[in-house]
Amino acid sequence: PRRARFELHKRWQSVTSVDVIEDGQILGGAKKGLPEQTLLRWQESPRNVLLLMKRGSHDILQRVADITNFLQAREGVRVLVERQVKYDLLDSFDIHVAELYGARDRSHHAVDLVITLGGDGLLMHANWLFQKSAPIILPVNLGSLGFLLPFEYDDIYPTIERVLTQDVDLTLRMRLRCRIIRNETVVMDLVVMNDAVVERGSSPYLASLDCFCNGQYVTTVQADGLIIATPTGSTAYSMSAGGSMMHPGIQALLLTPICPHSLSFRPLVFPDSAVISLCMPLDVRSHAWVSFDGRFRHRLMDGDILEVSNSEYPLPTVTHRNVTADWFRALNKAFNFNMRTRQKPL
Amino acid sequence: PRRARFELHKRWQSVTSVDVIEDGQILGGAKKGLPEQTLLRWQESPRNVLLLMKRGSHDILQRVADITNFLQAREGVRVLVERQVKYDLLDSFDIHVAELYGARDRSHHAVDLVITLGGDGLLMHANWLFQKSAPIILPVNLGSLGFLLPFEYDDIYPTIERVLTQDVDLTLRMRLRCRIIRNETVVMDLVVMNDAVVERGSSPYLASLDCFCNGQYVTTVQADGLIIATPTGSTAYSMSAGGSMMHPGIQALLLTPICPHSLSFRPLVFPDSAVISLCMPLDVRSHAWVSFDGRFRHRLMDGDILEVSNSEYPLPTVTHRNVTADWFRALNKAFNFNMRTRQKPL
Amino acid sequence: PRRARFELHKRWQSVTSVDVIEDGQILGGAKKGLPEQTLLRWQESPRNVLLLMKRGSHDILQRVADITNFLQAREGVRVLVERQVKYDLLDSFDIHVAELYGARDRSHHAVDLVITLGGDGLLMHANWLFQKSAPIILPVNLGSLGFLLPFEYDDIYPTIERVLTQDVDLTLRMRLRCRIIRNETVVMDLVVMNDAVVERGSSPYLASLDCFCNGQYVTTVQADGLIIATPTGSTAYSMSAGGSMMHPGIQALLLTPICPHSLSFRPLVFPDSAVISLCMPLDVRSHAWVSFDGRFRHRLMDGDILEVSNSEYPLPTVTHRNVTADWFRALNKAFNFNMRTRQKPL
Amino acid sequence: PRRARFELHKRWQSVTSVDVIEDGQILGGAKKGLPEQTLLRWQESPRNVLLLMKRGSHDILQRVADITNFLQAREGVRVLVERQVKYDLLDSFDIHVAELYGARDRSHHAVDLVITLGGDGLLMHANWLFQKSAPIILPVNLGSLGFLLPFEYDDIYPTIERVLTQDVDLTLRMRLRCRIIRNETVVMDLVVMNDAVVERGSSPYLASLDCFCNGQYVTTVQADGLIIATPTGSTAYSMSAGGSMMHPGIQALLLTPICPHSLSFRPLVFPDSAVISLCMPLDVRSHAWVSFDGRFRHRLMDGDILEVSNSEYPLPTVTHRNVTADWFRALNKAFNFNMRTRQKPL
Repeated sequence: PRRARFELHKRWQSVTSVDVIEDGQILGGAKKGLPEQTLLRWQESPRNVLLLMKRGSHDILQRVADITNFLQAREGVRVLVERQVKYDLLDSFDIHVAELYGARDRSHHAVDLVITLGGDGLLMHANWLFQKSAPIILPVNLGSLGFLLPFEYDDIYPTIERVLTQDVDLTLRMRLRCRIIRNETVVMDLVVMNDAVVERGSSPYLASLDCFCNGQYVTTVQADGLIIATPTGSTAYSMSAGGSMMHPGIQALLLTPICPHSLSFRPLVFPDSAVISLCMPLDVRSHAWVSFDGRFRHRLMDGDILEVSNSEYPLPTVTHRNVTADWFRALNKAFNFNMRTRQKPL
Repeated sequence: PRRARFELHKRWQSVTSVDVIEDGQILGGAKKGLPEQTLLRWQESPRNVLLLMKRGSHDILQRVADITNFLQAREGVRVLVERQVKYDLLDSFDIHVAELYGARDRSHHAVDLVITLGGDGLLMHANWLFQKSAPIILPVNLGSLGFLLPFEYDDIYPTIERVLTQDVDLTLRMRLRCRIIRNETVVMDLVVMNDAVVERGSSPYLASLDCFCNGQYVTTVQADGLIIATPTGSTAYSMSAGGSMMHPGIQALLLTPICPHSLSFRPLVFPDSAVISLCMPLDVRSHAWVSFDGRFRHRLMDGDILEVSNSEYPLPTVTHRNVTADWFRALNKAFNFNMRTRQKPL
Repeated sequence: PRRARFELHKRWQSVTSVDVIEDGQILGGAKKGLPEQTLLRWQESPRNVLLLMKRGSHDILQRVADITNFLQAREGVRVLVERQVKYDLLDSFDIHVAELYGARDRSHHAVDLVITLGGDGLLMHANWLFQKSAPIILPVNLGSLGFLLPFEYDDIYPTIERVLTQDVDLTLRMRLRCRIIRNETVVMDLVVMNDAVVERGSSPYLASLDCFCNGQYVTTVQADGLIIATPTGSTAYSMSAGGSMMHPGIQALLLTPICPHSLSFRPLVFPDSAVISLCMPLDVRSHAWVSFDGRFRHRLMDGDILEVSNSEYPLPTVTHRNVTADWFRALNKAFNFNMRTRQKPL
Repeated sequence: PRRARFELHKRWQSVTSVDVIEDGQILGGAKKGLPEQTLLRWQESPRNVLLLMKRGSHDILQRVADITNFLQAREGVRVLVERQVKYDLLDSFDIHVAELYGARDRSHHAVDLVITLGGDGLLMHANWLFQKSAPIILPVNLGSLGFLLPFEYDDIYPTIERVLTQDVDLTLRMRLRCRIIRNETVVMDLVVMNDAVVERGSSPYLASLDCFCNGQYVTTVQADGLIIATPTGSTAYSMSAGGSMMHPGIQALLLTPICPHSLSFRPLVFPDSAVISLCMPLDVRSHAWVSFDGRFRHRLMDGDILEVSNSEYPLPTVTHRNVTADWFRALNKAFNFNMRTRQKPL
């Protein structure tokens, strides 16, 4: 089984390129440049649709069951879910669906479309499932704040219909590959959607981290912590720590310090070609922890190196035609961006 | 007369491309993507070298005379200067050189290399001279702070020798094309290296500016002003107003508000494909002025539109192999970036 | 004619003091300390009530006429207005009232109570009228945003009734005395409610201002400008420039830089005993302008000194019992302070 | 045994008060107001001098021994040290001194002067020893960064001589009393010099803390944490989190959020009369920890209340006549405050 064939139409201001994708793998990164708009055109009908939900709510299960019935009524479409959801659907609704099986990384699984029914966290879950090549993801907002979720449940049937049959607007969200290197061995290798965060945890002091860019020493971090974020992550933790807000279409790495000891450590932005290395000193009185998209918290040891670079596999999320409009709608909804009570005329 | 032929070797993480440039025009922008490193390889010997200096100091004129003699001793090299400097060299040193003539935009002039001998302002002057296709620029620091000037006068002869004969590392600095549109007519059309700044001047109020991205309304600016900056300009005025510091190798537009009235107007970063339009309201009690790289201050009228977008002609400046090292050296020298007195052990 | 006698009851956490005020002068400043709560108790009935309005709206004039009738129906109460309003009331409503006459500073005028009917600007106008000893001021919100206006027009009659007959809760708002000294002569002497702002206006550069505290050199300001604000002014311009928000009950001076060139110029707060002097250099290539509460813009000359210190006469504004509640209500209403869309449960 | 009698001369801009202190207790707080300058005049010779040092360095012990000999050579002066230092002096130098005994709070101990020989941490230790009424403290800088330490070891003998025999300039540093209330019982009661910090520790979420001022609800904190700091603490953790820098002579409470989720949670400053209460919600999925001056880390339980208010006992530290000069010297030394490389003229 393989993913359905499709073309990627990338439009720059004056140029359009068309890539025919045989193996369903969408590559990103510097080597392909940054198009203004990316459009997927199916060359074969998409067959395999993965439905993701957070378990625990009967209401959501009901909706998943409804969507499953809607999808399975279509010729040639197969629904997949995660193992537990499979049994939930069977027990509660007597619905039979396939199971997303496989090892930790489902990148090679023949999924053509992922639909997430929940909050931003579920999009992050999709990121964990597909650490390498990711299928396109339709993020549907289900009652949550949903910063990254431009599609509402109310319109879900026409939306799914459109995504399965027409051209699909995509945002190729840059991801970061994060590796912990200990004694010249890679002991952890993860791809994040938002950020990798090094912080002091409950220790009163963070170790002084030496920070390198492409092997070049740049500065030493004395702070509560340091956030290395994608543009998608710029509106997550990095924003709380004072970083700028970056359009999800940019390819760049943000380095945002958390409570730096120095008055002059302003947030930094590096090009996507940058490989950032944070080196734990060998003689630490203090400690450092690292977490990835707010999870997988992990203690860094003396001499450990955290290496962060652009992943070659972006996360292709379905968006409306106008990504910028989606972005500002989310900024306004979630953060009251630039909101101010207007003076009312007398 | 035309520019000398050369190749541009662009290196991404895993790919290298070679463009043979017949007409001396270096194009940039989204359509070509963002290489990690750009190298110029001469296919013909560069012939025409433009020396730029700020007039007024005999010391500097002396140095320009010395460099002129050094260059004119080379087979086939011709030195150009601006008109007044031509007469200064003639009067004080009896040196004959050619004059950079032509209309406001010298982009089609057959200059192969520009050497600026002064401060950052002189690099900005080179930007004004070549508003379209720009020759490569060697920025030499002469006594000033020199944030953008990685080359020192002390090493100038071997540096020039190297640039004329060997492969040249370049930073293709993104520029912004700024147009004022009044009654559907373009009344001003300029390319800036750092920023376009709209501000209230001595008026107590700035007009409420409606801000659009690619024709999409995004927000209304109520502030002392708004800065639209290149990554090169991120360490200029935008930094004072609280913007992040962006590596010069990134392609992006920064929107940094100056003293916004709202608590939640955080600096924004857009992709280089973004066309930003600021619209003056029709019924203004208040005023707005715009300036370009800190110059050409200009009053905006009711209904005026300031449109800012990526110029297709970057400013190719000569750098050391390691641009990031150059950048941090400048951050430390000019801004004491992240400097903090270390606790000395007893 | 003199102001009505009253007592000031000041309550600290464990101590209450009572001052009998014979001459109607409320003094503030360090010498009296900072009470948690200040209460005015009339010992004589207040007689003279000044109504302030911004001219131009017939609706407001109607309201002023109504209030005038209400007040003049009271035994022994006399209404005063500014000259033009006097004629407006006569022309439109055939109402006769007294006129607030006198020189620029009406501090010695026998006004017992000022009622402002408009926006924050009108409170500022009251500040200009009473540059020395100020009567108590009841700020009534009339259709404007009204950050400093805790009283609404809808309740105005019971509110006025209460202020004239019962104990009155006051906030003694600290004010700043600002003097421009040129060649050892005081050429301007003003008291502001919000701030004095030195800025570069339309000049590209601000002069480097040397900043002294109590005659002690503290730092040199290289910036677009510098704001010296009262706690009341902390939520005005200083807030836009990044300053902290200070409860109006504090006595302190804020120094908030506007777009400082240095990365490490954080806003500073000085005790109310501080006398801040800003000295213009003698050899200026650049310029500086100063304005007071956003008005009276004035060019600073070479060698000028702007001296700012706590005025001994605070501005006593009527508040509700709970000043902190008033303050946060205004922060929320005007600035969406700390507002964030809550995640709704599914 | 009691402390030596002295007078406190407090000088405001136009008034001086003299308090004769019989019991050696210096009170501060709102009830006494905020003098511009405070001077201690001995009415009896100070007798009991406590020397504080951090154990572990023979060099420092040597210096303590030297100072002990210097002091014990004076008629009527008695030296006290902490228990372990007493044995160190005996073992290494055969010097006999008295021991600071007693319960956790040595406030009633007859100490007239404390000399700290070390860094800022030792001043904090003095704060812990004297949680109620504190004797005057001479902070001597010993090799450390020493933000709060205006006196250098090189001048120590004339400095001590002066403090014992002449008028002493004091800064009455405001302190904060912090109480944890659980089920209406006070389970912790501490006085801090810098700050109380509530934070989420290694939990991914901080509980939403409801924040009250004098019993009035003001806002709900959603953040990594919240700092409640004294003006002395404004240049410690609060500064890293973005707070303003407050002159140590001010009396105020700072509320500085750490990485707030909202874009509009600006640091707040309250008057010293404010009692701030932070209430843990009853149904917490998340956690909160509190620490005091960076120590005594303590888990907060559901429903706990942290109540913070001005302590009536300030920390009287010896300063030079010009406190502001001391402060800016420290700002420059420790933080490169407002430092910027000047453009050198050519």
